[in-house]
Amino acid sequence: MNLFSITIASLTLLASTPALAQSTQLRDGVRAVAPALEKYQHDTLFGDLWKRPGLGARDRSIITLSALITRNQTAELTEYLNLALDNGVKPSEVSEIITHLAFYAGWGNAMAAVAVTKDVFGARKIATEQLSPPSPQLFALNEAAEADRAKRVGELFGAVFPGVTQYTTDVLFRDLWLRPGLAPRDRSLVTISSLVASGQVAQLNGHIPIGMNNGLTQAEIAEALTHLTFYVGWPNVFSAMPVAKEAFEKRAR
Amino acid sequence: MNLFSITIASLTLLASTPALAQSTQLRDGVRAVAPALEKYQHDTLFGDLWKRPGLGARDRSIITLSALITRNQTAELTEYLNLALDNGVKPSEVSEIITHLAFYAGWGNAMAAVAVTKDVFGARKIATEQLSPPSPQLFALNEAAEADRAKRVGELFGAVFPGVTQYTTDVLFRDLWLRPGLAPRDRSLVTISSLVASGQVAQLNGHIPIGMNNGLTQAEIAEALTHLTFYVGWPNVFSAMPVAKEAFEKRAR
Amino acid sequence: MNLFSITIASLTLLASTPALAQSTQLRDGVRAVAPALEKYQHDTLFGDLWKRPGLGARDRSIITLSALITRNQTAELTEYLNLALDNGVKPSEVSEIITHLAFYAGWGNAMAAVAVTKDVFGARKIATEQLSPPSPQLFALNEAAEADRAKRVGELFGAVFPGVTQYTTDVLFRDLWLRPGLAPRDRSLVTISSLVASGQVAQLNGHIPIGMNNGLTQAEIAEALTHLTFYVGWPNVFSAMPVAKEAFEKRAR
Repeated sequence: MNLFSITIASLTLLASTPALAQSTQLRDGVRAVAPALEKYQHDTLFGDLWKRPGLGARDRSIITLSALITRNQTAELTEYLNLALDNGVKPSEVSEIITHLAFYAGWGNAMAAVAVTKDVFGARKIATEQLSPPSPQLFALNEAAEADRAKRVGELFGAVFPGVTQYTTDVLFRDLWLRPGLAPRDRSLVTISSLVASGQVAQLNGHIPIGMNNGLTQAEIAEALTHLTFYVGWPNVFSAMPVAKEAFEKRAR
Repeated sequence: MNLFSITIASLTLLASTPALAQSTQLRDGVRAVAPALEKYQHDTLFGDLWKRPGLGARDRSIITLSALITRNQTAELTEYLNLALDNGVKPSEVSEIITHLAFYAGWGNAMAAVAVTKDVFGARKIATEQLSPPSPQLFALNEAAEADRAKRVGELFGAVFPGVTQYTTDVLFRDLWLRPGLAPRDRSLVTISSLVASGQVAQLNGHIPIGMNNGLTQAEIAEALTHLTFYVGWPNVFSAMPVAKEAFEKRAR
Repeated sequence: MNLFSITIASLTLLASTPALAQSTQLRDGVRAVAPALEKYQHDTLFGDLWKRPGLGARDRSIITLSALITRNQTAELTEYLNLALDNGVKPSEVSEIITHLAFYAGWGNAMAAVAVTKDVFGARKIATEQLSPPSPQLFALNEAAEADRAKRVGELFGAVFPGVTQYTTDVLFRDLWLRPGLAPRDRSLVTISSLVASGQVAQLNGHIPIGMNNGLTQAEIAEALTHLTFYVGWPNVFSAMPVAKEAFEKRAR
């Protein structure tokens, strides 16, 4: 068992899982190629970042999955899917995260995640019945808030981009966001993580207040950005911070 | 035959092709991992978006290929290459799209697309003679427009970045854009799609008027953005819309 | 031996290497799919760009590796790693470039690079002893400059994002940047290339002056952008040029 496996084991309180064993080969490569990177991974990433009190392991797993799927980084996805399931993310929630990111990160990203997740679900004998059905009873819509959003977007873009405007209303805000398989607070965590991961920080302006309405605290969003530095790179987070800070200040007024 | 194959078949009027059969395995995974995603794919993506009247299937294929190549998403490329060829994109046009995107998306993106396309061309017995030659007779240059473009870029960047400025003139605007294997209107559709797909929306400012000079209408560009929401994610399109809208307004004045 | 191999051979003064032979298959595909792309690759990319006098082959290799790793383009990485080692980039420097980019491009990008590099190092019998140790004696810190940087970032973000701020100081500027395995000038070249490659151009504002303090000249940075046009696509470089130009002008005042 290499250092990485030990770290993961101590995080998840599992001595060993097939998925982690599977990735040992990849991790052994780290020492052979970049001993410093292995040290940072052991000491800083798993030994420090993942243990910070600002967010629990389940939230960190949701953030990490969102970052990897948004960036189409399927190589590490098997491992982090298993870690997420160990950390309490339900299979139905994984399924909804992937579906949500089809719209926020791109269809191909979701399809690539499906290919990896299928094997993880198969190895864990997760059946389709454990996932949410395609057309469940949706959460009730906050009609006033949605009317306000639709009005703003409609005034800006409705005349010039009728297709985008219509799909945004019909598919995103009157359907996807209301699916009960993932709590709105978690859906916001996925969305915010994806926006930072793809460098689309301008839209944090809208999604940070939505997230705070959905129950995320400012401290949790700030800690999500801390977590993301390692997974999406410092520059994406340094671009996100000024926008997020302004959104926090606007909300506080 | 699964739902996806049926959808594709109804789009392309082909009952089955080797390439689609090949991808059945991937598509079956969707149901096992994300039943909702399969529903959206069947009802919304293929059942609605691809059938919208604003753009034909050939244009939608060009847009989709440009998005996938720009985002280096080779996993779905085989399938969409076959769909593109079925939808009337000629092999020589596929070849030019890849070459064009070497410059707009990055050399490695084009090389990754080559590796996938080689097999698709091989399976369809497409010979090199069906492609445009490396050095064909070029389209005539609009000297006045090019002189104006070169002057503007030269004044901005010529002194500080002589290499970029020179290659832009010599390789892009006096060579690549004049290659006859892809109509200028289609080349603009590829470029605009690639800019949205990579989040480089500032340059829509220049490429939307070029595209409209090349024959794209405002409604077609707006519908291209509608198509792209699904393939490059909502955030990229929401970043593109304000820039595109301004470019449309500027042109109308 | 195809045209590409000949080009590489003439660049590296090696008649043939296993790694280049390995990639012949991929390169043969270029002719079958996009004869024009093969021509541009032979005449423009390898026949002209790589031979420009503004930067040596070693620097161009560092820039190219940084671009490929930042964009997670592992398909071409084997070839360019071998070219880099042939061009005088030391194994220990490759190791540090990957480690550096874990922080600037994202952890998964570095891990994907590790998987490819492991095989390249293995084939060349590069042992761990040739790499820098995980915890070497660090370069001396420029305390005044670092205090100034920490103060600026702290004032902007310290209260709202304490985690990001702390890691930036402790892990990046008091550790990673001081590792002796890669000269500060080369570390800046990696960072600047990565920022352009990921479209995070705003931060060139800070990293161009750091790079020039570390010994990069304005002409070298401009030539790095010229090199990057081909590897990260024209749009990323056109977004970078105005920011870089302003950073140059500010420095000249």
